[in-house]
Formats: sequence, structure tokens, C-alpha cells
Amino acid sequence: MSTSSSRVVDVHTHMYPPRYVELLESRDTIPLIRKFPGAEDPRYIILPAEAESLKNIGDDASSSHLPGRPVTSHYSSLKQKIHFMDTHKIDISVISLANPWLDFVASEEAGETAKTVNQEFSSMCAEYPGRLFFFATLPLTAPTDVLLSSIENVKNLKYCRGVILGTSGLGKGLDDPNLLPVFKALAANNLLIFLHPHYGLPSEVWGPRATEEYGHVLPLALGFPLETTIAVARMYLAGVFEQVPSLRMLLAHSGGTLPFLAGRIESCIVHDGHLVREGKVGPGRRTIWEILKEQVYLDAVIYSEVGLKAAIEASGVDRLMFGTDHPFFPPLGSDEQGVWESMSWNREAVEKALGVGSEGMERVMGGNAVEILRLREDEV
Amino acid sequence: MSTSSSRVVDVHTHMYPPRYVELLESRDTIPLIRKFPGAEDPRYIILPAEAESLKNIGDDASSSHLPGRPVTSHYSSLKQKIHFMDTHKIDISVISLANPWLDFVASEEAGETAKTVNQEFSSMCAEYPGRLFFFATLPLTAPTDVLLSSIENVKNLKYCRGVILGTSGLGKGLDDPNLLPVFKALAANNLLIFLHPHYGLPSEVWGPRATEEYGHVLPLALGFPLETTIAVARMYLAGVFEQVPSLRMLLAHSGGTLPFLAGRIESCIVHDGHLVREGKVGPGRRTIWEILKEQVYLDAVIYSEVGLKAAIEASGVDRLMFGTDHPFFPPLGSDEQGVWESMSWNREAVEKALGVGSEGMERVMGGNAVEILRLREDEV
Repeated sequence: MSTSSSRVVDVHTHMYPPRYVELLESRDTIPLIRKFPGAEDPRYIILPAEAESLKNIGDDASSSHLPGRPVTSHYSSLKQKIHFMDTHKIDISVISLANPWLDFVASEEAGETAKTVNQEFSSMCAEYPGRLFFFATLPLTAPTDVLLSSIENVKNLKYCRGVILGTSGLGKGLDDPNLLPVFKALAANNLLIFLHPHYGLPSEVWGPRATEEYGHVLPLALGFPLETTIAVARMYLAGVFEQVPSLRMLLAHSGGTLPFLAGRIESCIVHDGHLVREGKVGPGRRTIWEILKEQVYLDAVIYSEVGLKAAIEASGVDRLMFGTDHPFFPPLGSDEQGVWESMSWNREAVEKALGVGSEGMERVMGGNAVEILRLREDEV
Repeated sequence: MSTSSSRVVDVHTHMYPPRYVELLESRDTIPLIRKFPGAEDPRYIILPAEAESLKNIGDDASSSHLPGRPVTSHYSSLKQKIHFMDTHKIDISVISLANPWLDFVASEEAGETAKTVNQEFSSMCAEYPGRLFFFATLPLTAPTDVLLSSIENVKNLKYCRGVILGTSGLGKGLDDPNLLPVFKALAANNLLIFLHPHYGLPSEVWGPRATEEYGHVLPLALGFPLETTIAVARMYLAGVFEQVPSLRMLLAHSGGTLPFLAGRIESCIVHDGHLVREGKVGPGRRTIWEILKEQVYLDAVIYSEVGLKAAIEASGVDRLMFGTDHPFFPPLGSDEQGVWESMSWNREAVEKALGVGSEGMERVMGGNAVEILRLREDEV
């Protein structure tokens, strides 16, 4: 094992434990997992456009146009996760349930389901002590008391370092005042929020040709990061970061587009007649730049030197953390056991932006995560 | 007048000529201009949320919460434009009609309206020869033959250097195959397209608190650049840049978010099963990075060093052109005759990113525009 300072840590890497897969297999509206006769792997269907093509396809497995993505062994096999880590020289992974988490679970079941899922994550981490940690899942559809007690529950789980959260919150977004007790409880328990998109944008914005012709590119490449950007901007304008000053958030995909758009956000705020009249623009106002440098961390899942540099300049080299988004975006047309571009492109971006072997590179590739998420061996 | 290489050129600056203001004043659905008794300036109302508050407000001018933005003399007075240029040491402005251009004009009137508006722009430029050029407006709602003949018309206007275009095209977006003849005619006539947003995103993405509490920040700060990003990504995926290789586009607001998201777009393309199966991912495919460096120009209206650097790294220092977005975003609570942040923030971003007095700075502040848009005195 390499030294602490040169460890490679993947903070953006998903697992679907068995109980969650069963849940998805039992469903007939998205999100769902469906098997097709003759197809090697079941398909995971999460996007509205995929649900549309599901209606037309029946059970015809001979089609090479099955909707969604194959649920390979990478999704729920812990051995595959460790194999992926070994192949790509990743020392530690902070695993999390992927979207849409438990957003779709009925209120009365959410608490127990969350407990089961988080227990499964705990057990997986315990199988490889020191190599695996996790972000827990909250039962956001559950009654408030169940939701708050689930935070008490996960803070006592040995390998838990935070929670993964989508942008819908309790159904009205993350600027919903009813979420403040949740944010306060997470902050009080030193649980980082890993904010991750799922809902994208309304499908009409992709235009009439998108579903047939552009694959999943537009909702995944643009919808996801734009959703994250909007969610954080709404939290910022609602004053959530002021009201919960110890709140810490790790933003997926290098903050969506926040590093690039922060300047425009600031310009639109200081030039907004409504905000100025309401006294919201004046001395002492914390800018979005300050939030990015003080309460936000960014993953380094941005696939380019250009984007990564902007992220580093916006938040600081001590706030970026490497990630892969595994098991999504597997290599196509070649051996899935080989090197994944999600590793090589994101690693190359760090190398180009900061220099191979530089202190900055060691920080982004793992040093920051070890410190921020308390991943040292004596902290297990 | 400073030397050619150190000229300051503003490529993103709008004017509302008298005929267009009359058109807006005659309307009772957005976009419209309305006068309120007692209010100093009429209000220009373009966003759906503003139309909502218009319903509730009646003609009560005593309210300090009038919807929209004041139509000051900056909107249609050529003297004010020149005064703004002189105050901010801008040598040349390439003026354009602002959103939503003629998108709302009835088919049978569009051709004549465009001709009138473009003639008014020509006359304004002729009043200050060498200091003003313009991007013309196309009658996109007109029948195809009228639309195509309007391109023939504007190419012969002495001070015209391109056309300004929104993202709706003929109503189905810029990836509409019916637009190809328009793009080809523009490219054949060496007319640059200045792509500018107007429609933003569906208002539900801003959440229930936005209209009341966040002013216009979200639709303007995020909706506009996201709209541009989506429009160009759709054109790219539809192969428009391949089919019209001499097409040149200047993207408003430094490309929306394209420089930051180009890496993710590329990753989503090479990992898309549908596109791979269709043979659209393979040797010879031009990446979005190549489009950004070969067929796209970016304005420098991004209000931060972080964003501007990313834009420069994505497209190259020889493809960025300074702009102000005047007359939008006037200073609030102080003298509108003073220095506008749209000038100072964007100029500071260039200074910080490239160095005061550097060759790169001279290029971005004006040298690039002089070359790309043929603005030398002997080219008038």
C-alpha cells in the first residue's frame, strides 16, 4: 500500500447492493431493472426517454436496441469493484448508492429500506477494511422523525462518511425550508453531503430529434450537470449556506457548471433590481465564490484539463477530489476488464492541470479525500 | 483613435431602433413594452415570470415592484450608445437587435419588418462611420423564399458583418434540417452567426420560490447560458458543422457552458451505445473540441477570470472577442453614466487571464474582432 499522501481515492463510485437490485426488479415504472430473454444482462432503465422506448419494444430480446444500460456484474458485485480498483490502482473507494436512491420508495417503507441498504454498505466496507468507505442513503420520503432518526443511525456506522443526496429533497428541491432541520442534523454530525443529479431537465429542451438520434448524450452530458448547477444556485439564493454555516457539500461532476458560471451568477445578483430593493445585495453578502471556497468540495469527474483547471481555480486545489463514476460509462466495443476512460481521462486531466507527481496532483488524486473524509487507517 | 491593434471592440451590444420599440409597445403578450403612469421609464417585459406579475399589478405605478426592466434612453438612443462607448473607451461597437428579435412577428409581416429594422441599423452605423457595424436580423417566421432573399439583402448592407440568431430557428431548434439552406446561404455569403439565447429553460426548473424570492437571477444567470449550450450541442450532434463546414458562429456568454462541459460531452458520446452502434463514433469523427477551435468564436462576456481562462483554453486566444451586453445590466443605486460592471468585470477578467497590455489582451479586447469581422477603416 502506498503512503497516505500518495493514495488514490475514488470518491464518486456507485454500488447497487442486492436488496436495492431486488427493489428495482420488482418495479414496472422507472426506475426499474428488467430482464430480456436472450440478453446477457438485465437492463437498468432510469431516463424518461428510455421508458418510452420500453413501451414499444415488448420482450423482443433479439433487438440490438434494448433501452437503458446493461446491469453487469460491476453494478452489485463487490469483487468486481475491488477488481476495478486494483486494475486502476485505486487504493480507497468511497462507495455510494447511485441515482435515484430511495426517491421512489413509499413513505412507510423508506425508513426500513434505508436501514437495510445502509447496513449492506456497512457490511461491504467491513469486508475490505480500510479500502472501502461509504456515503449513506437517506429515506427522504419518510416522515420527518424517521428521516431525522436515520441520520442518527448512519452517523454511528463505522465506515460512513456522509450521505449521498439528489436534488429533489422532500419533493420541492433543496431550497425547501423544510429541509433545514435535515441539513442542520447532517452538519451537526459532521456528515458531508455528496450532491448528485438524477432528474436532469424537462425532455422538451432536447428537441424532437434527441430521443431517436442522439442516444443519451444530451440528458447525461448536459442535463445532469445543469441540474446540479440549478440545485446549488437555488440553495445559495435561499440562504441555506448562511443558515447552516457548517454544512459541507461535495458536488458531483465538478460542480455541474458552477465554476464556469459563478461570475455570471454574481453579475446577475448585483444587477437585480428585486434583490437590491429587498436589501439582499450589500456589504457582508457572501458571494458564490466564497461558498465555493468555504462550504463546497468538487469531485474531479469532468473529463478535461480545461474544466478541471476552472474547478481548481474556483474552489482551490485542496477542495478537489478524484472520482470515476464507476460502474457507469463502461468502455464499449472492447474488454470491460481493461482501462476505463472515466479513469484515464480524469487522471490525465489532473496530470495536465497540475503536473505528474506534483503535490497538487497527490492532493486531488487522494490526499484531499483522506483528510477531508478522515480515511486514515487510525480513523477507521 | 488608437492604433488598429489596440482598438477596443464591443461585439455584444444591443440596440432597439424606433420601429422595433413601436412594435413592442403595440403588443399585449410578451415580449412587450408597457408604460406605467408616474413611472419614469416604460418597462420591457420578456420573461414568463414577469408576465405573471404583470397580470397582478394592474396600472399601479406607485409600486416599486414593476415587472421587467426600465427602457431607458440606453435602449434606443444612438447618442447614448456613443456616450457609453466614449465613457468606456470602446472604439468600435458591433450592434445587434436584442432578444427576441423578430421571433414573434407574423409570417406575412416578418420580411418587411426585418428590412425596416436592418435599414435602421444601417442608418445608425452610417451616422458614425467606422465606429459602428452591425449584425442583421433575419425574418425567421417568413416563408423560405423571403427568408433566403433577406440574406441576399443584408449581405449588401455596407456595415453588416453577420446576423444575430436565437435558438428557436424555424420553431424546432437549430438542429432542424429545414434550417440547412439558411446556414448554407449565411456561410456562402461570409456572414457570421451571433448565437444569442432568449428562451431559457422551462420555468418549473427554478422551483416554487424563484419568482417571488430570487428576482431574475436564475433565468438570466443559468437559463440563458444553458439554452446556448443545448442549442450548440444539438447542432453538433445533428452534424450541422460537418454539413456546412464554412459556417462560423459567435456564441454569446463565452459559449454558455460549452468550454467547461466539452470533456463530459465527449465522454458521453464515446460511451453511448446507440451512437456507437449507428457508426457515429469512430475514426474521423470531429470532436466538440475541434468545433470549438475551428468553427466557433466566443464572446468574453463571462464576468470572471476563471470562466474566461476556460473559454480561451477551449477555443484559443485568437477566437475570443470582448463584449458588454449593453444596455442590459445597468448599475443599480448609482449613476448610470458611470462605469458599468459589465465593462469593468469583463475587462478585469481579460487583464487577469492574459496580462495587462499583453498581445493576448489586445487580441481579445479588439484585435480579433477587427480581423474576424473585417472592421479596418479600409474595409468599411
